[in-house]
Amino acid sequence: MKAIPEALAAIIGQRVDQIDTPALVIDLGAMDRNIQRMAEFARKHQVRWRPHAKMHKSAELALLMQQAGAQGVCVQKTSEAEAMAEGGVRDITITNQVIAMPKLHRVARLAALLASRGGRLGIAVDSPEGIERLAEAMVLSGSDAGIDVLVEIDVGQGRCGVPPGEAAVALALAVARHSRLRFAGLQAYHGRAQHLASAADRRDAITQVVQQAAKTRDLIIAAGLPVPLVTGSGTGTLVHEAASGVYGELQAGSFLFMDADYARNERDPAQPAFEHALFVKTQVISVRDTHAVCDAGHKSHAIDSGLPTVGQLSVGRALRYANGGDEHGLLYAEGDKARLPALGRMLWLIPGHCDPTVNLYDFMIGVRGGLTLGTVERIIRVDARGALH
Amino acid sequence: MKAIPEALAAIIGQRVDQIDTPALVIDLGAMDRNIQRMAEFARKHQVRWRPHAKMHKSAELALLMQQAGAQGVCVQKTSEAEAMAEGGVRDITITNQVIAMPKLHRVARLAALLASRGGRLGIAVDSPEGIERLAEAMVLSGSDAGIDVLVEIDVGQGRCGVPPGEAAVALALAVARHSRLRFAGLQAYHGRAQHLASAADRRDAITQVVQQAAKTRDLIIAAGLPVPLVTGSGTGTLVHEAASGVYGELQAGSFLFMDADYARNERDPAQPAFEHALFVKTQVISVRDTHAVCDAGHKSHAIDSGLPTVGQLSVGRALRYANGGDEHGLLYAEGDKARLPALGRMLWLIPGHCDPTVNLYDFMIGVRGGLTLGTVERIIRVDARGALH
Repeated sequence: MKAIPEALAAIIGQRVDQIDTPALVIDLGAMDRNIQRMAEFARKHQVRWRPHAKMHKSAELALLMQQAGAQGVCVQKTSEAEAMAEGGVRDITITNQVIAMPKLHRVARLAALLASRGGRLGIAVDSPEGIERLAEAMVLSGSDAGIDVLVEIDVGQGRCGVPPGEAAVALALAVARHSRLRFAGLQAYHGRAQHLASAADRRDAITQVVQQAAKTRDLIIAAGLPVPLVTGSGTGTLVHEAASGVYGELQAGSFLFMDADYARNERDPAQPAFEHALFVKTQVISVRDTHAVCDAGHKSHAIDSGLPTVGQLSVGRALRYANGGDEHGLLYAEGDKARLPALGRMLWLIPGHCDPTVNLYDFMIGVRGGLTLGTVERIIRVDARGALH
Repeated sequence: MKAIPEALAAIIGQRVDQIDTPALVIDLGAMDRNIQRMAEFARKHQVRWRPHAKMHKSAELALLMQQAGAQGVCVQKTSEAEAMAEGGVRDITITNQVIAMPKLHRVARLAALLASRGGRLGIAVDSPEGIERLAEAMVLSGSDAGIDVLVEIDVGQGRCGVPPGEAAVALALAVARHSRLRFAGLQAYHGRAQHLASAADRRDAITQVVQQAAKTRDLIIAAGLPVPLVTGSGTGTLVHEAASGVYGELQAGSFLFMDADYARNERDPAQPAFEHALFVKTQVISVRDTHAVCDAGHKSHAIDSGLPTVGQLSVGRALRYANGGDEHGLLYAEGDKARLPALGRMLWLIPGHCDPTVNLYDFMIGVRGGLTLGTVERIIRVDARGALH
């Protein structure tokens, strides 16, 4: 007996209420509107958008956004870059440090492959040793392709990157000394600022970020090296980087699906009205006096940015989701008129954080016509699921 | 270009220090000792052990424990049961409610398959409707195989199950009215008690559990129905259920690998000295004045039961791991003599919770000879990775 693959749980043309649970479902109408809003926003501000594929992990969705004007993808991992290239994406930036020589040989091989397809590969560095290792791998690759190298500066995230200023100038000059490395600009991303609850706090944080990036850029230019690009930003703060005149490229990825966590925060009026487009479909498998239990626990959605919320569209009553372990969710009725859902009832959860939620599935089920009456239009493969290297 | 599968990152015979990161690595010596300790413990207490495969998700490891005396496996999901059956396991209990008819047809088909192989399938129920649906699927299956049905009682977990006592008697009698359903006993698991920090608190919680299970068992017997089995327990409390005289079977699974979370709690002196056997190998990819950054974030390990701890075996200094997002971990040196690891340094993380950590990988790398000088002995497939249905 062959185990039944998850993909067969949904069939093209199937009605949305027939999809077995748990399932990761995209509302394609909402997703398409999010893409249009982002494309218009980027056009208006005359910035490039390079959506982070660490979010959706799907070459099909990367190419869909490219058709709408996106400039390739960002990724965090060498193996994510490989998965995107395999799916036909030709313009890829790894916004992260790669240090292990086995991976750097893969990076060099991928740079050659993308160059041969008329594309390019970019990568971030934050240490002299990282630059030397990358240069060595490029020379050993046997190809004469180059690679775009971004110097990562820490603009408040407190993770990778050198401090803004002279340390970054030294790295940029070190990059420029290697013929196979093209100094391509600055990687400057403040991830924690994306999730500040107050719109004013996010604005203030990014004001600092922009100042630090501009200062570092000017120092590098003063040292004689052009700085083609400052890149970074995310869905929570993109209005500020886009309007800065300093950032030439936005890396926001979450706008495509939107997290419950972003929805909890105060919206900036200038931010496009992105909609939730990713849902975990779940079903009630047990009903008690005090609560109901559904079949989606934290094996069905990531909980690093908080628990999922329960979409109201098919329920019409307020339900609170509580953690019931790997395989179960606990549902409590909130408020006077609330009551618990019946056994077998289908519910829609909005994940707290899309990126690691997508990583738990092999396929996303694309539904057209809404989550009440729609039908399955396509099954979208999560090409970079489990891409850890 | 074909994306490079994670499995190829390790090769049989390779030295442990050559394994690229992040990687999920089993210390096979420690795992084997854990199996021997559990087998001895169960023999001594004359209880069966049916390790929960929701933990390791691997048919190969299930069969290894069967050779050491384990009675098949438990699982939480229909698709996990299918994955175990496909891998050759013939004695499987689904310790959970299954309500969706498409899944119940799969359950019925699996019951017939396992019966044809001389095995059996068991399942839990906690509602009259669940029993009726299961009976309908069994009748429609076209096979005359039966299925073992456990009535689940809620002994303190506050999730699925009916209250101990009369409600369970009614369900047991309802099961017995269907010729294709065999009433097999009580499912009585208190998950939260596993993780109480104090050994005395765990003992007190399980004293209550055992009383409730015994009372319910006696009521069912008084109603004229034999109760072949009371089953449940976990790694945190197994000393108490094993000594109870009420439980005939232990479902503990985590003992095989041991979580960092279990290690944080006070150990019961009667508990076998299980060792950590599952590690995430990671590498330092950036070093700052204040901290270092490694390439394992919460895409590499689950954080529902706390962050991983940093294994000291290859470092010799105290490092604290802090969350750095999906793809990064932040490492801080603790104490006077502590210092940060160098760029490229390999480290070993002990995951807070093994079950959902294993779910993030396609393969586990089995190392023989310890994590310093050992070599890769085998690559173990995570058969039930992503088994959500």
